Amino acid sequence: MNHNEITTFLNDNNVDAAWITTPLNIFYLTGYLSEPHERLFSLLITKDGEETLFCPKMEVEEAKNAGFKGNIVGYLDTESAFDLIEQRDYATFAIEAEHLSVKRLREVEQAFNVQQIEDIDQVLKDVRNVKTDEEIELLHEAAKYADLAIQAGVEKLAEGVTEIEVLNHIETTMKQHGISKMSFDTMVLFGDHAAAPHGTPGDRQLKNNEFVLFDLGVIYKGYCSDITRTVAFGTPTDKAKEIYNIVLEANKQAISIIKPGAKISECDKVARDIISNAGFGEYFPHRLGHGLGLSVHEFPDISSANKDEFKPGMVLTVEPGIYVPGVAGVRIEDDIVVTEDGHRILTGYQK
Amino acid sequence: MNHNEITTFLNDNNVDAAWITTPLNIFYLTGYLSEPHERLFSLLITKDGEETLFCPKMEVEEAKNAGFKGNIVGYLDTESAFDLIEQRDYATFAIEAEHLSVKRLREVEQAFNVQQIEDIDQVLKDVRNVKTDEEIELLHEAAKYADLAIQAGVEKLAEGVTEIEVLNHIETTMKQHGISKMSFDTMVLFGDHAAAPHGTPGDRQLKNNEFVLFDLGVIYKGYCSDITRTVAFGTPTDKAKEIYNIVLEANKQAISIIKPGAKISECDKVARDIISNAGFGEYFPHRLGHGLGLSVHEFPDISSANKDEFKPGMVLTVEPGIYVPGVAGVRIEDDIVVTEDGHRILTGYQK
Repeated sequence: MNHNEITTFLNDNNVDAAWITTPLNIFYLTGYLSEPHERLFSLLITKDGEETLFCPKMEVEEAKNAGFKGNIVGYLDTESAFDLIEQRDYATFAIEAEHLSVKRLREVEQAFNVQQIEDIDQVLKDVRNVKTDEEIELLHEAAKYADLAIQAGVEKLAEGVTEIEVLNHIETTMKQHGISKMSFDTMVLFGDHAAAPHGTPGDRQLKNNEFVLFDLGVIYKGYCSDITRTVAFGTPTDKAKEIYNIVLEANKQAISIIKPGAKISECDKVARDIISNAGFGEYFPHRLGHGLGLSVHEFPDISSANKDEFKPGMVLTVEPGIYVPGVAGVRIEDDIVVTEDGHRILTGYQK
Repeated sequence: MNHNEITTFLNDNNVDAAWITTPLNIFYLTGYLSEPHERLFSLLITKDGEETLFCPKMEVEEAKNAGFKGNIVGYLDTESAFDLIEQRDYATFAIEAEHLSVKRLREVEQAFNVQQIEDIDQVLKDVRNVKTDEEIELLHEAAKYADLAIQAGVEKLAEGVTEIEVLNHIETTMKQHGISKMSFDTMVLFGDHAAAPHGTPGDRQLKNNEFVLFDLGVIYKGYCSDITRTVAFGTPTDKAKEIYNIVLEANKQAISIIKPGAKISECDKVARDIISNAGFGEYFPHRLGHGLGLSVHEFPDISSANKDEFKPGMVLTVEPGIYVPGVAGVRIEDDIVVTEDGHRILTGYQK
C-alpha cells in the first residue's frame, strides 16, 4: 500500500497524526472495505508510522482477514471508541476536511487534545490520482463489463419496451456475469426524456425513431467503470443526427489531445469549443468529465477550472453532451487512461 | 412537508437560518432526491420560512418537477454557488453537524458571515422519527417485498449452490417485481460463514444440514425494509438448533414489550438477558436494532444507550443474533411499527 506518502507528509509538515475517514481511502490503505453508516470508522496514522483502525467490534475479524496488520480498536455500539485507548495528545492533527463531519471533528479534537488542524485531502487525492498497473488492469476489466452492459441494453430495445424493463435486463445480465454491483444507478432514457442530463428511468415506452441514452458502470473488484452511449432506435430526425455528430466530434477531439503534460482544462475547452461553435454551448451545462477509480467520481476534475496537467496513470472520463429540452439529449462517454506517451481508451463499445 | 418544526426551532432559538445537507433530509423537505457526489447540494431555510435549494444547474428542472416551490440556485461546475446570490449575513446559523463536512462549514461561515453555529440534527431526527400513516404504508409495502425476497432465496437453495448464485437470484427476482434498488448489499451466508455478522457473500457452496442466513431489504418509493432470516437446509446440529431457539425467543420477547411509553433500552435488555442467561452473551456484539425509514439505519437507536421511550409512529428493527466462530451464526430480524396501543410487525416471513 501507499502509506509512505502520508508519513512523509506528516513529518515534512510537522503534523503529529492523520485521521483518515473516507471509507474508500481506508480501503485503499488497509485492504478493508466497510460501509460504517453512522458508526465511527477511521484510520489513525501517526508521524512514526503506527496505524490504528477504529471500527465496530463485530468487524475486527474481517479487517484482519482483509490483511490489515496494524492495531485495531473494536468498540461496541454502547462504547465510545476513544475510551478504549490510552490517552494520547496530537497537538497538530491532519483530517480529511472534505469528509470529516463537524461533529466528528469536535470528538477527535477532544479525544486527542488537538490544538491545530491541517488538511490531508490533497495528499490522499494525489496518491489515488495516479493508478498502478494493477489498478489500471482492474479498471479495464470494469470497462469491458460496461461495454457488455450496453450491448445487453441495445439487444433489449423494441417498440413499446419501457426504460425500467431495459434497465432490469441490463442489471440481470450483469449479475449473470458475476457483477453484483453497478457503480451508480443505471440510466436508460428514451427520446426527449434524455434531455434531462440526470434523469430517472421510468415507465416511458420506446417509440420508433427515437434516441436511447444509456449511462452506466459496474464495480469490478472495487474498481468502477462509467460509460455513456446514445443510440438511435430507427431513423432519428435530422436535428437529432446533427446533435449526435457534434457530440461525437467533441468526444473524439477532446480525447485526442490527452497525453502527459497536456493541460486538463484544454481537454474541456476542445470539446466545449466544438459544441459552442455549432451553436449549442448553452445546452452543455456540465464539466467534460471526472477521474475514475475506487470511486466513480474522483480526481482529477476534467473542467476549465482544473489548472493541472495530465500525468501517466490518471484514469478519467470524457463525456460531452447536448441536451435540448423537448428535442433530444445526447451524451457520449468513454473511460481513458493516460499512458507514458499518450492515452488508451478503456471502453470499447462502438460510437 | 414538515417545515414548521424547523422555522419554529429557528425562531425559538433565535437562529437566523438553517443549512440542510443530508440528501435524504432534503428529499424529505423538498420531494427532490439527488446524489450530489462531491458537489454542493443544500437547502437553506431562513427564520422567516424562505427556502432556497442550491444544486447543480443541470438538476434545476428536476427539482422543480419534483414539486419544490422555493428558490433554486443552480450553479455550473465552474461556478461557486455562493457567488450567484446576493450577499446576506446569518450571524447565528444552524447546521447538520453530523453531516456537514469541515470544509463545507468553512465555506458557509465565510459566505454568510456566520458568527455562531447551532446544531439542527436533533430537530430533523425528531421530525423523521415519527412516521406519518402514508410513510408507514410505504414501509409496509417495502417489508412485503423483503418477505418475497427471502422466499426467492429459500427457493434457490440446493446442495452445491454458491452464496453469490442465491444472491443473484434474489435480486433478479426483485427486479422482475419492479424493485430497482436494494436498501443495502444483500447478504447470503452459509454455515459458519454466517458467524461474521457483517460477512460478504462469496463462492462458498451450500452443504447439507447447514444454516443459511439472509439479511436484505428493498427500497420502495424511497422507503426501506430490512429483514433477516436464518433457515436450516437439511437437519442442523443440536448446538445450532439450540442457538436458533435462543435467538428466536430473544426476537419474540423483545418485540412483545414494544408499545408507546415503554423504554427503548428495555427492549434491548430483554433480548440481551435471554441470550446472556443462555450463556451466549459474548456472542451478541451489536445493538438490538435501529430505526428504519428513508434510510435503512436511522433513529431511534435500539440499544441500552437510548434513554428514550417508544412513541407511536416509530418504525424500527429488532435483530438479535448469536455468532459463534466456527460453529454457527444466527440472526432473526423484523421491522416493527409502534402503534397507538402497542405495535405491529411489518415483516411477515415465517420464523
